[in-house]
Amino acid sequence: MQTTRDALFDRQAAELGHRFDGEIRIGGNYVSVLRQDSHVYVSGQIPRVGETLVVVGCVGADVDLARARHAAKVCAMRALVLLRQELGGLDKIGRILRMTVYVHCSEHFTQLSEVGDAASELLHAVLGDAGRHTRTSVGVRQLPKNAPVELDLIAAVA
Amino acid sequence: MQTTRDALFDRQAAELGHRFDGEIRIGGNYVSVLRQDSHVYVSGQIPRVGETLVVVGCVGADVDLARARHAAKVCAMRALVLLRQELGGLDKIGRILRMTVYVHCSEHFTQLSEVGDAASELLHAVLGDAGRHTRTSVGVRQLPKNAPVELDLIAAVA
Amino acid sequence: MQTTRDALFDRQAAELGHRFDGEIRIGGNYVSVLRQDSHVYVSGQIPRVGETLVVVGCVGADVDLARARHAAKVCAMRALVLLRQELGGLDKIGRILRMTVYVHCSEHFTQLSEVGDAASELLHAVLGDAGRHTRTSVGVRQLPKNAPVELDLIAAVA
Repeated sequence: MQTTRDALFDRQAAELGHRFDGEIRIGGNYVSVLRQDSHVYVSGQIPRVGETLVVVGCVGADVDLARARHAAKVCAMRALVLLRQELGGLDKIGRILRMTVYVHCSEHFTQLSEVGDAASELLHAVLGDAGRHTRTSVGVRQLPKNAPVELDLIAAVA
Repeated sequence: MQTTRDALFDRQAAELGHRFDGEIRIGGNYVSVLRQDSHVYVSGQIPRVGETLVVVGCVGADVDLARARHAAKVCAMRALVLLRQELGGLDKIGRILRMTVYVHCSEHFTQLSEVGDAASELLHAVLGDAGRHTRTSVGVRQLPKNAPVELDLIAAVA
Repeated sequence: MQTTRDALFDRQAAELGHRFDGEIRIGGNYVSVLRQDSHVYVSGQIPRVGETLVVVGCVGADVDLARARHAAKVCAMRALVLLRQELGGLDKIGRILRMTVYVHCSEHFTQLSEVGDAASELLHAVLGDAGRHTRTSVGVRQLPKNAPVELDLIAAVA
Protein backbone atom coordinates (compact mmCIF):
# COMPACT_ATOMS: atom_id res chain seq x y z
CA MET A 1 0.00 0.00 0.00
CA GLN A 2 1.22 3.44 -0.91
CA THR A 3 2.22 5.76 1.88
CA THR A 4 -0.30 8.57 2.02
CA ARG A 5 0.71 12.19 1.80
CA ASP A 6 -0.64 12.70 5.30
CA ALA A 7 1.73 10.02 6.62
CA LEU A 8 4.64 11.56 4.70
CA PHE A 9 3.73 14.96 6.14
CA ASP A 10 3.72 13.51 9.67
CA ARG A 11 7.12 11.93 9.06
CA GLN A 12 8.57 15.30 8.05
CA ALA A 13 7.02 16.97 11.09
CA ALA A 14 8.61 14.33 13.33
CA GLU A 15 12.02 14.78 11.69
CA LEU A 16 11.80 18.52 12.19
CA GLY A 17 10.71 18.04 15.79
CA HIS A 18 7.77 20.40 15.55
CA ARG A 19 4.01 20.02 15.68
CA PHE A 20 2.03 21.66 12.91
CA ASP A 21 -1.47 21.20 14.26
CA GLY A 22 -2.22 24.71 15.51
CA GLU A 23 -4.24 27.01 13.35
CA ILE A 24 -2.20 29.40 11.26
CA ARG A 25 -3.05 32.90 12.31
CA ILE A 26 -4.56 35.03 9.56
CA GLY A 27 -3.33 38.59 8.99
CA GLY A 28 -5.51 41.68 8.91
CA ASN A 29 -6.57 42.77 5.50
CA TYR A 30 -4.85 40.00 3.66
CA VAL A 31 -5.20 36.24 3.79
CA SER A 32 -2.73 33.41 4.20
CA VAL A 33 -4.19 31.34 1.41
CA LEU A 34 -6.63 31.99 -1.40
CA ARG A 35 -8.14 29.77 -4.08
CA GLN A 36 -9.14 31.15 -7.47
CA ASP A 37 -10.52 28.52 -9.86
CA SER A 38 -7.81 25.88 -10.20
CA HIS A 39 -5.03 27.85 -8.53
CA VAL A 40 -4.16 28.37 -4.89
CA TYR A 41 -1.91 31.21 -3.76
CA VAL A 42 -0.08 30.97 -0.44
CA SER A 43 1.22 34.11 1.31
CA GLY A 44 4.84 34.43 2.36
CA GLN A 45 5.54 32.00 5.21
CA ILE A 46 8.19 32.50 7.87
CA PRO A 47 9.38 29.63 10.12
CA ARG A 48 6.85 30.09 12.86
CA VAL A 49 5.39 27.19 14.84
CA GLY A 50 2.46 28.34 16.90
CA GLU A 51 3.51 31.76 18.14
CA THR A 52 7.25 31.05 18.04
CA LEU A 53 9.70 31.84 15.28
CA VAL A 54 11.84 28.70 15.54
CA VAL A 55 14.90 30.21 13.80
CA VAL A 56 15.72 33.93 13.96
CA GLY A 57 18.37 36.13 12.38
CA CYS A 58 20.64 36.65 9.42
CA VAL A 59 21.89 33.59 7.52
CA GLY A 60 25.67 33.63 7.20
CA ALA A 61 25.95 35.74 10.37
CA ASP A 62 23.62 34.55 13.20
CA VAL A 63 22.29 31.46 11.44
CA ASP A 64 24.28 28.72 9.70
CA LEU A 65 23.29 26.76 6.60
CA ALA A 66 21.90 23.81 8.55
CA ARG A 67 19.60 26.04 10.61
CA ALA A 68 18.59 27.99 7.54
CA ARG A 69 17.62 24.74 5.85
CA HIS A 70 15.61 23.77 8.93
CA ALA A 71 13.85 27.12 8.73
CA ALA A 72 13.10 26.63 5.03
CA LYS A 73 11.53 23.26 5.76
CA VAL A 74 9.34 24.74 8.49
CA CYS A 75 8.16 27.39 6.03
CA ALA A 76 7.34 24.68 3.49
CA MET A 77 5.41 22.70 6.11
CA ARG A 78 3.36 25.81 6.88
CA ALA A 79 2.57 26.20 3.20
CA LEU A 80 1.40 22.58 3.10
CA VAL A 81 -0.77 23.13 6.17
CA LEU A 82 -2.41 26.08 4.44
CA LEU A 83 -2.96 24.17 1.21
CA ARG A 84 -4.46 21.26 3.16
CA GLN A 85 -6.69 23.65 5.08
CA GLU A 86 -7.88 25.39 1.91
CA LEU A 87 -8.37 22.28 -0.23
CA GLY A 88 -9.52 19.82 2.43
CA GLY A 89 -6.57 17.46 2.05
CA LEU A 90 -3.04 17.18 0.74
CA ASP A 91 -4.33 14.82 -1.98
CA LYS A 92 -6.14 17.74 -3.57
CA ILE A 93 -2.84 19.38 -4.49
CA GLY A 94 -2.30 18.83 -8.20
CA ARG A 95 1.08 20.45 -8.54
CA ILE A 96 3.23 23.06 -6.90
CA LEU A 97 3.79 25.48 -9.78
CA ARG A 98 6.07 28.14 -8.41
CA MET A 99 7.94 28.79 -5.19
CA THR A 100 9.98 31.88 -4.32
CA VAL A 101 12.45 31.53 -1.45
CA TYR A 102 13.76 34.70 0.19
CA VAL A 103 16.82 34.23 2.38
CA HIS A 104 17.74 36.99 4.83
CA CYS A 105 21.50 36.75 4.47
CA SER A 106 24.83 38.43 4.99
CA GLU A 107 26.66 40.07 2.14
CA HIS A 108 28.88 37.10 1.37
CA PHE A 109 26.46 34.22 1.86
CA THR A 110 25.97 32.74 -1.61
CA GLN A 111 24.41 29.34 -0.79
CA LEU A 112 20.89 30.54 -1.52
CA SER A 113 20.10 27.52 -3.68
CA GLU A 114 21.16 25.19 -0.86
CA VAL A 115 18.63 26.85 1.42
CA GLY A 116 15.94 26.68 -1.24
CA ASP A 117 16.77 23.01 -1.82
CA ALA A 118 15.65 22.17 1.71
CA ALA A 119 12.15 23.49 1.00
CA SER A 120 12.10 21.78 -2.39
CA GLU A 121 13.16 18.46 -0.86
CA LEU A 122 10.40 18.69 1.70
CA LEU A 123 7.72 19.36 -0.89
CA HIS A 124 9.00 16.45 -2.96
CA ALA A 125 9.17 14.17 0.09
CA VAL A 126 5.51 14.80 0.91
CA LEU A 127 3.97 15.25 -2.53
CA GLY A 128 6.21 13.22 -4.84
CA ASP A 129 6.23 14.42 -8.45
CA ALA A 130 3.42 16.86 -7.68
CA GLY A 131 5.91 18.63 -5.43
CA ARG A 132 8.42 19.32 -8.20
CA HIS A 133 8.04 23.02 -8.93
CA THR A 134 9.79 25.96 -10.53
CA ARG A 135 11.74 28.00 -8.05
CA THR A 136 13.61 31.24 -7.48
CA SER A 137 15.94 31.74 -4.51
CA VAL A 138 17.26 35.18 -3.64
CA GLY A 139 19.16 36.74 -0.76
CA VAL A 140 17.46 39.75 0.81
CA ARG A 141 18.33 42.28 3.47
CA GLN A 142 15.60 41.66 6.01
CA LEU A 143 12.43 39.67 6.48
CA PRO A 144 9.41 40.17 8.75
CA LYS A 145 10.32 39.76 12.45
CA ASN A 146 13.99 39.17 11.60
CA ALA A 147 13.11 35.76 10.12
CA PRO A 148 15.95 33.99 8.26
CA VAL A 149 13.75 32.60 5.46
CA GLU A 150 10.41 33.40 3.88
CA LEU A 151 8.74 31.55 1.02
CA ASP A 152 5.56 31.82 -0.96
CA LEU A 153 4.04 29.59 -3.60
CA ILE A 154 1.34 28.97 -6.16
CA ALA A 155 -0.22 25.53 -6.54
CA ALA A 156 -2.60 23.93 -9.00
CA VAL A 157 -5.61 22.01 -7.69
CA ALA A 158 -5.77 18.30 -8.57
CA MET B 1 -26.97 53.35 -1.10
CA GLN B 2 -23.62 51.60 -1.19
CA THR B 3 -20.53 53.71 -1.52
CA THR B 4 -18.99 53.01 -4.92
CA ARG B 5 -15.42 51.90 -5.32
CA ASP B 6 -14.73 55.11 -7.22
CA ALA B 7 -15.88 57.15 -4.24
CA LEU B 8 -13.78 55.02 -1.88
CA PHE B 9 -10.79 55.51 -4.18
CA ASP B 10 -11.31 59.29 -4.14
CA ARG B 11 -11.51 59.24 -0.34
CA GLN B 12 -8.15 57.45 -0.12
CA ALA B 13 -6.60 59.91 -2.58
CA ALA B 14 -7.83 62.81 -0.46
CA GLU B 15 -6.44 61.25 2.74
CA LEU B 16 -3.08 60.76 1.06
CA GLY B 17 -3.16 64.31 -0.26
CA HIS B 18 -2.27 63.36 -3.82
CA ARG B 19 -4.06 63.44 -7.14
CA PHE B 20 -4.01 60.27 -9.19
CA ASP B 21 -5.50 61.53 -12.41
CA GLY B 22 -2.37 61.81 -14.55
CA GLU B 23 -1.60 59.05 -16.99
CA ILE B 24 0.88 56.51 -15.70
CA ARG B 25 3.91 56.57 -17.93
CA ILE B 26 4.59 53.32 -19.73
CA GLY B 27 8.12 51.90 -19.87
CA GLY B 28 9.99 50.93 -23.02
CA ASN B 29 9.76 47.31 -23.93
CA TYR B 30 7.58 46.33 -21.08
CA VAL B 31 4.11 47.40 -19.99
CA SER B 32 2.65 48.63 -16.72
CA VAL B 33 -0.37 46.40 -16.90
CA LEU B 34 -1.40 43.42 -18.99
CA ARG B 35 -4.54 41.34 -19.19
CA GLN B 36 -4.47 37.67 -20.16
CA ASP B 37 -7.89 35.99 -20.11
CA SER B 38 -9.25 36.45 -16.59
CA HIS B 39 -6.02 37.67 -15.00
CA VAL B 40 -4.41 41.08 -14.89
CA TYR B 41 -0.74 41.54 -14.06
CA VAL B 42 0.51 44.87 -12.74
CA SER B 43 4.21 45.81 -12.96
CA GLY B 44 6.17 46.89 -9.91
CA GLN B 45 4.90 50.30 -8.74
CA ILE B 46 7.00 52.84 -6.87
CA PRO B 47 5.41 55.79 -5.00
CA ARG B 48 5.40 58.22 -7.89
CA VAL B 49 2.68 60.81 -8.41
CA GLY B 50 3.01 62.39 -11.82
CA GLU B 51 6.75 62.76 -12.30
CA THR B 52 7.58 62.98 -8.58
CA LEU B 53 8.64 60.22 -6.26
CA VAL B 54 6.76 61.35 -3.16
CA VAL B 55 8.92 59.43 -0.69
CA VAL B 56 12.60 58.65 -1.34
CA GLY B 57 15.25 56.67 0.49
CA CYS B 58 15.96 53.77 2.77
CA VAL B 59 13.31 52.77 5.33
CA GLY B 60 14.79 52.61 8.83
CA ALA B 61 17.47 55.13 7.85
CA ASP B 62 16.11 58.07 5.76
CA VAL B 63 12.43 57.11 5.95
CA ASP B 64 10.40 56.21 9.05
CA LEU B 65 7.59 53.68 9.30
CA ALA B 66 4.83 56.27 8.86
CA ARG B 67 6.37 57.61 5.63
CA ALA B 68 7.03 54.08 4.39
CA ARG B 69 3.36 53.26 4.95
CA HIS B 70 2.38 56.40 3.05
CA ALA B 71 4.63 55.28 0.21
CA ALA B 72 3.08 51.80 0.22
CA LYS B 73 -0.39 53.32 -0.06
CA VAL B 74 0.66 55.48 -3.00
CA CYS B 75 2.03 52.37 -4.74
CA ALA B 76 -1.28 50.58 -4.13
CA MET B 77 -3.22 53.56 -5.53
CA ARG B 78 -1.11 53.42 -8.67
CA ALA B 79 -1.88 49.72 -9.03
CA LEU B 80 -5.60 50.52 -8.74
CA VAL B 81 -5.28 53.26 -11.36
CA LEU B 82 -3.69 50.75 -13.73
CA LEU B 83 -6.33 48.11 -13.07
CA ARG B 84 -9.08 50.68 -13.63
CA GLN B 85 -7.41 51.84 -16.83
CA GLU B 86 -7.04 48.26 -18.13
CA LEU B 87 -10.47 46.99 -17.14
CA GLY B 88 -12.52 50.13 -17.64
CA GLY B 89 -13.55 50.50 -14.00
CA LEU B 90 -12.71 49.45 -10.48
CA ASP B 91 -15.90 47.38 -10.40
CA LYS B 92 -14.37 45.01 -12.93
CA ILE B 93 -11.81 43.84 -10.39
CA GLY B 94 -12.91 40.41 -9.18
CA ARG B 95 -10.19 39.82 -6.63
CA ILE B 96 -6.65 40.80 -5.85
CA LEU B 97 -4.91 37.42 -5.85
CA ARG B 98 -1.34 38.16 -4.92
CA MET B 99 0.71 41.17 -3.92
CA THR B 100 4.45 41.30 -3.32
CA VAL B 101 5.75 44.25 -1.31
CA TYR B 102 9.45 45.08 -1.53
CA VAL B 103 10.74 47.43 1.15
CA HIS B 104 14.10 49.14 0.63
CA CYS B 105 15.30 49.00 4.22
CA SER B 106 18.24 49.19 6.56
CA GLU B 107 19.78 46.09 8.01
CA HIS B 108 17.85 46.21 11.27
CA PHE B 109 14.43 47.31 10.06
CA THR B 110 12.14 44.35 10.64
CA GLN B 111 8.68 45.95 10.38
CA LEU B 112 8.19 44.80 6.80
CA SER B 113 4.71 43.45 7.51
CA GLU B 114 3.69 46.80 8.97
CA VAL B 115 4.67 48.49 5.70
CA GLY B 116 2.87 45.85 3.65
CA ASP B 117 -0.21 46.27 5.88
CA ALA B 118 -0.62 49.84 4.67
CA ALA B 119 -0.99 48.68 1.07
CA SER B 120 -3.28 45.85 2.14
CA GLU B 121 -5.47 48.22 4.14
CA LEU B 122 -5.81 50.52 1.17
CA LEU B 123 -6.85 47.74 -1.19
CA HIS B 124 -9.37 46.55 1.37
CA ALA B 125 -10.69 50.09 1.94
CA VAL B 126 -11.38 50.57 -1.77
CA LEU B 127 -12.34 47.07 -2.86
CA GLY B 128 -13.78 45.46 0.26
CA ASP B 129 -13.52 41.67 0.33
CA ALA B 130 -12.27 41.66 -3.27
CA GLY B 131 -9.22 43.47 -1.96
CA ARG B 132 -8.22 40.71 0.48
CA HIS B 133 -5.24 39.06 -1.15
CA THR B 134 -2.28 36.81 -0.42
CA ARG B 135 0.86 38.77 0.28
CA THR B 136 4.61 38.55 0.69
CA SER B 137 6.65 41.38 2.24
CA VAL B 138 10.43 41.40 2.04
CA GLY B 139 13.22 43.86 2.80
CA VAL B 140 15.55 44.53 -0.11
CA ARG B 141 18.75 46.49 -0.61
CA GLN B 142 17.67 48.98 -3.24
CA LEU B 143 14.76 49.83 -5.47
CA PRO B 144 14.50 51.77 -8.75
CA LYS B 145 15.32 55.47 -8.27
CA ASN B 146 16.04 54.95 -4.56
CA ALA B 147 12.34 54.35 -3.89
CA PRO B 148 11.47 53.15 -0.38
CA VAL B 149 8.76 50.70 -1.47
CA GLU B 150 7.78 48.84 -4.63
CA LEU B 151 4.86 46.49 -5.06
CA ASP B 152 3.40 44.38 -7.82
CA LEU B 153 0.22 42.34 -8.01
CA ILE B 154 -1.97 39.94 -9.89
CA ALA B 155 -5.73 40.39 -10.00
CA ALA B 156 -8.66 38.32 -11.25
CA VAL B 157 -11.26 39.96 -13.47
CA ALA B 158 -14.82 40.06 -12.12
CA MET C 1 9.57 37.38 -45.64
CA GLN C 2 9.35 37.93 -41.91
CA THR C 3 12.41 37.18 -39.84
CA THR C 4 11.65 34.14 -37.70
CA ARG C 5 11.99 34.19 -33.96
CA ASP C 6 14.70 31.54 -34.27
CA ALA C 7 16.71 33.86 -36.51
CA LEU C 8 16.18 36.75 -34.10
CA PHE C 9 17.29 34.53 -31.22
CA ASP C 10 20.47 33.59 -33.13
CA ARG C 11 21.17 37.25 -33.81
CA GLN C 12 20.97 38.05 -30.08
CA ALA C 13 23.22 35.10 -29.24
CA ALA C 14 25.79 36.37 -31.76
CA GLU C 15 25.66 39.89 -30.35
CA LEU C 16 26.18 38.54 -26.84
CA GLY C 17 29.05 36.36 -28.06
CA HIS C 18 27.74 33.21 -26.40
CA ARG C 19 26.36 29.92 -27.62
CA PHE C 20 23.11 28.75 -26.10
CA ASP C 21 22.95 25.25 -27.49
CA GLY C 22 23.93 23.23 -24.44
CA GLU C 23 21.24 21.63 -22.35
CA ILE C 24 20.25 23.60 -19.30
CA ARG C 25 21.03 21.57 -16.24
CA ILE C 26 18.00 20.69 -14.15
CA GLY C 27 18.10 21.05 -10.35
CA GLY C 28 17.28 18.34 -7.85
CA ASN C 29 13.75 18.38 -6.56
CA TYR C 30 12.65 21.31 -8.59
CA VAL C 31 12.47 21.93 -12.32
CA SER C 32 13.71 24.72 -14.57
CA VAL C 33 10.49 25.00 -16.50
CA LEU C 34 6.97 23.70 -16.02
CA ARG C 35 3.83 23.93 -18.11
CA GLN C 36 0.38 23.93 -16.54
CA ASP C 37 -2.46 24.28 -19.05
CA SER C 38 -1.81 27.51 -20.96
CA HIS C 39 0.91 28.86 -18.68
CA VAL C 40 4.60 28.14 -18.50
CA TYR C 41 6.65 28.97 -15.40
CA VAL C 42 10.41 29.44 -15.69
CA SER C 43 12.64 29.14 -12.61
CA GLY C 44 15.08 31.88 -11.63
CA GLN C 45 17.86 32.08 -14.24
CA ILE C 46 21.37 33.32 -13.53
CA PRO C 47 23.79 34.29 -16.35
CA ARG C 48 25.32 30.89 -16.85
CA VAL C 49 26.42 29.61 -20.24
CA GLY C 50 27.20 25.91 -20.07
CA GLU C 51 28.90 25.51 -16.69
CA THR C 52 30.26 29.07 -16.54
CA LEU C 53 28.72 32.07 -14.86
CA VAL C 54 29.68 34.70 -17.45
CA VAL C 55 29.37 37.66 -15.09
CA VAL C 56 29.99 37.38 -11.33
CA GLY C 57 29.67 39.76 -8.40
CA CYS C 58 27.90 42.75 -6.99
CA VAL C 59 26.52 45.38 -9.40
CA GLY C 60 27.74 48.84 -8.47
CA ALA C 61 30.84 47.36 -6.81
CA ASP C 62 32.44 44.54 -8.87
CA VAL C 63 30.17 44.82 -11.91
CA ASP C 64 29.25 47.96 -13.86
CA LEU C 65 25.94 48.74 -15.54
CA ALA C 66 27.06 47.54 -18.98
CA ARG C 67 28.14 44.14 -17.62
CA ALA C 68 25.00 43.87 -15.53
CA ARG C 69 22.94 44.49 -18.66
CA HIS C 70 24.92 41.80 -20.47
CA ALA C 71 24.18 39.43 -17.59
CA ALA C 72 20.47 40.27 -17.72
CA LYS C 73 20.38 39.48 -21.44
CA VAL C 74 22.07 36.13 -20.87
CA CYS C 75 19.45 35.31 -18.22
CA ALA C 76 16.69 36.22 -20.66
CA MET C 77 18.26 34.03 -23.37
CA ARG C 78 18.27 31.11 -20.95
CA ALA C 79 14.60 31.69 -20.22
CA LEU C 80 13.90 31.62 -23.96
CA VAL C 81 15.88 28.38 -24.35
CA LEU C 82 13.76 26.81 -21.60
CA LEU C 83 10.50 28.03 -23.13
CA ARG C 84 11.57 26.71 -26.54
CA GLN C 85 12.55 23.38 -24.99
CA GLU C 86 9.24 23.06 -23.13
CA LEU C 87 6.97 24.21 -25.96
CA GLY C 88 8.85 22.84 -28.95
CA GLY C 89 9.54 26.21 -30.54
CA LEU C 90 9.73 29.92 -29.85
CA ASP C 91 6.64 30.40 -32.01
CA LYS C 92 4.59 28.64 -29.37
CA ILE C 93 5.12 31.49 -26.95
CA GLY C 94 1.91 33.49 -26.83
CA ARG C 95 3.01 36.21 -24.47
CA ILE C 96 5.47 36.86 -21.70
CA LEU C 97 3.15 37.80 -18.84
CA ARG C 98 5.42 38.65 -15.95
CA MET C 99 9.14 38.93 -15.36
CA THR C 100 10.87 39.63 -12.05
CA VAL C 101 14.46 40.85 -12.24
CA TYR C 102 16.61 40.58 -9.11
CA VAL C 103 19.81 42.61 -9.19
CA HIS C 104 22.53 41.80 -6.66
CA CYS C 105 23.70 45.35 -6.01
CA SER C 106 25.56 47.67 -3.73
CA GLU C 107 23.74 49.96 -1.35
CA HIS C 108 23.80 53.00 -3.61
CA PHE C 109 23.15 51.40 -7.01
CA THR C 110 19.73 52.63 -8.07
CA GLN C 111 19.71 51.83 -11.79
CA LEU C 112 17.71 48.66 -11.31
CA SER C 113 15.28 49.54 -14.10
CA GLU C 114 18.19 50.03 -16.50
CA VAL C 115 19.36 46.48 -15.78
CA GLY C 116 15.84 45.13 -16.16
CA ASP C 117 15.49 47.04 -19.44
CA ALA C 118 18.24 44.93 -21.00
CA ALA C 119 16.27 41.74 -20.42
CA SER C 120 13.05 43.41 -21.59
CA GLU C 121 14.75 44.64 -24.77
CA LEU C 122 16.01 41.16 -25.54
CA LEU C 123 12.60 39.56 -25.12
CA HIS C 124 11.10 42.24 -27.33
CA ALA C 125 13.85 41.83 -29.94
CA VAL C 126 13.19 38.10 -30.24
CA LEU C 127 9.44 37.90 -29.68
CA GLY C 128 8.13 41.28 -30.83
CA ASP C 129 4.88 42.33 -29.17
CA ALA C 130 4.56 38.90 -27.52
CA GLY C 131 7.68 39.84 -25.59
CA ARG C 132 6.17 42.93 -23.98
CA HIS C 133 5.51 41.90 -20.39
CA THR C 134 4.85 43.31 -16.95
CA ARG C 135 7.99 43.59 -14.88
CA THR C 136 9.37 44.19 -11.42
CA SER C 137 13.04 45.04 -10.84
CA VAL C 138 14.51 45.01 -7.35
CA GLY C 139 17.98 45.21 -5.81
CA VAL C 140 18.86 42.33 -3.51
CA ARG C 141 21.75 41.47 -1.23
CA GLN C 142 22.97 38.25 -2.80
CA LEU C 143 22.07 35.76 -5.48
CA PRO C 144 22.98 32.09 -5.98
CA LYS C 145 26.71 31.63 -6.69
CA ASN C 146 27.36 35.36 -6.34
CA ALA C 147 25.50 36.02 -9.60
CA PRO C 148 24.85 39.69 -10.42
CA VAL C 149 21.36 39.15 -11.86
CA GLU C 150 18.62 36.55 -11.61
CA LEU C 151 15.26 36.62 -13.37
CA ASP C 152 12.20 34.43 -13.54
CA LEU C 153 9.08 34.66 -15.67
CA ILE C 154 5.65 33.36 -16.51
CA ALA C 155 4.54 33.00 -20.13
CA ALA C 156 1.27 32.20 -21.85
CA VAL C 157 1.21 29.53 -24.55
CA ALA C 158 0.18 30.68 -28.05
